[in-house]
Amino acid sequence: MSTQTAAGTGRFISFEGIDGCGKSTQSRLLSERLRRAGTEVVLTREPGGAPGAEQIRKLLVEGATDRWSPETEILLFTAARRDHWERTIAPALARGATVITDRFVDSTRVYQGTTRGDLVDLVDELHRLMIGIEPDLTFVIDMSPEAALARASARNGGEDRFETFGTSFQSRLREGFTSLALRAPERVRLIDGNGTPEIVADRIDAEAVFTPA
Amino acid sequence: MSTQTAAGTGRFISFEGIDGCGKSTQSRLLSERLRRAGTEVVLTREPGGAPGAEQIRKLLVEGATDRWSPETEILLFTAARRDHWERTIAPALARGATVITDRFVDSTRVYQGTTRGDLVDLVDELHRLMIGIEPDLTFVIDMSPEAALARASARNGGEDRFETFGTSFQSRLREGFTSLALRAPERVRLIDGNGTPEIVADRIDAEAVFTPA
Repeated sequence: MSTQTAAGTGRFISFEGIDGCGKSTQSRLLSERLRRAGTEVVLTREPGGAPGAEQIRKLLVEGATDRWSPETEILLFTAARRDHWERTIAPALARGATVITDRFVDSTRVYQGTTRGDLVDLVDELHRLMIGIEPDLTFVIDMSPEAALARASARNGGEDRFETFGTSFQSRLREGFTSLALRAPERVRLIDGNGTPEIVADRIDAEAVFTPA
Repeated sequence: MSTQTAAGTGRFISFEGIDGCGKSTQSRLLSERLRRAGTEVVLTREPGGAPGAEQIRKLLVEGATDRWSPETEILLFTAARRDHWERTIAPALARGATVITDRFVDSTRVYQGTTRGDLVDLVDELHRLMIGIEPDLTFVIDMSPEAALARASARNGGEDRFETFGTSFQSRLREGFTSLALRAPERVRLIDGNGTPEIVADRIDAEAVFTPA
């Protein structure tokens, strides 16, 4: 895995984890804390995060689940990520803003790697060739699939998604996300996702000092 | 450039060249000749050639010309090509059919390489990583941009495309296509595109013996 970090002067932070773990909530809460401290923050998400990338997202999330082979899917995710990087992330970092993204390349590594182990190297090689950037800091929000399901059930549509993938698949995804912290300890922080959003936010703050820009 | 050829038992043939050179006409005429001789032929084209690939094609041909960076564009072309390969070309070759495609990876090499020379290696590396297949035989239909423009003017919309890109760019594309024959002489045949479609078809037949399957 490449350990190259963002070339800009701003800080590039990603949130990762299984569906329902609370990473979207924590992305938003961290953005709000940093903005209150006077930092310019660009809050974004994948797949998508730029007009072209959102068009590619539609191809990825709509239609039958076997619409694309894993290899074609990886190419489309990487195309969307390249567009997201060029049009949204890189310009923000270049002007000194902090970028917080809900998912980045680690999601592709974990989802594709859980589907078929031999795809991890392909995702890595494609990322190195076409993008080559890793976040400066990645928070993996860790939670059992059962707890995440209970959280997701409170949201519209959350339960459907769990039913589609199954708890066993979610357990393997969880292992994939937690193992990121072992593979790239210099940038990945594992955060216990249990408890209220405020408690989890305190854990995130304890892991990293966020100083105003 | 990889010289790996198709894994199936059928024959994989591509036609390449600048807009208006007559490659679509010659693809069709060769298909008809082979079918009359009893060969099963799948006639296809890029970008597109499979339902998913056609959806990606829409992202590539619609919208402003600066909608995608060259790198994102290469990823989208490769995603479409991977889908085209998996869903249309490989199954046809596996059952022994001959596949004739109007454009394949050489078009991406030449168009992207003409836009920015350093992209040729990127196109090659991405193709090797994600597809790795070259046609068994490639016909480059060679014609001056002026003659191709006269041909294209007879078609609806052909002239617009020339006005968009300009004759100077078309001249550089022509050089890119003819240089393919030098880079991969084992599979690329350069065909003089001047004259009636029947005369050009005779030149194609003279370059390769097409035996019924």
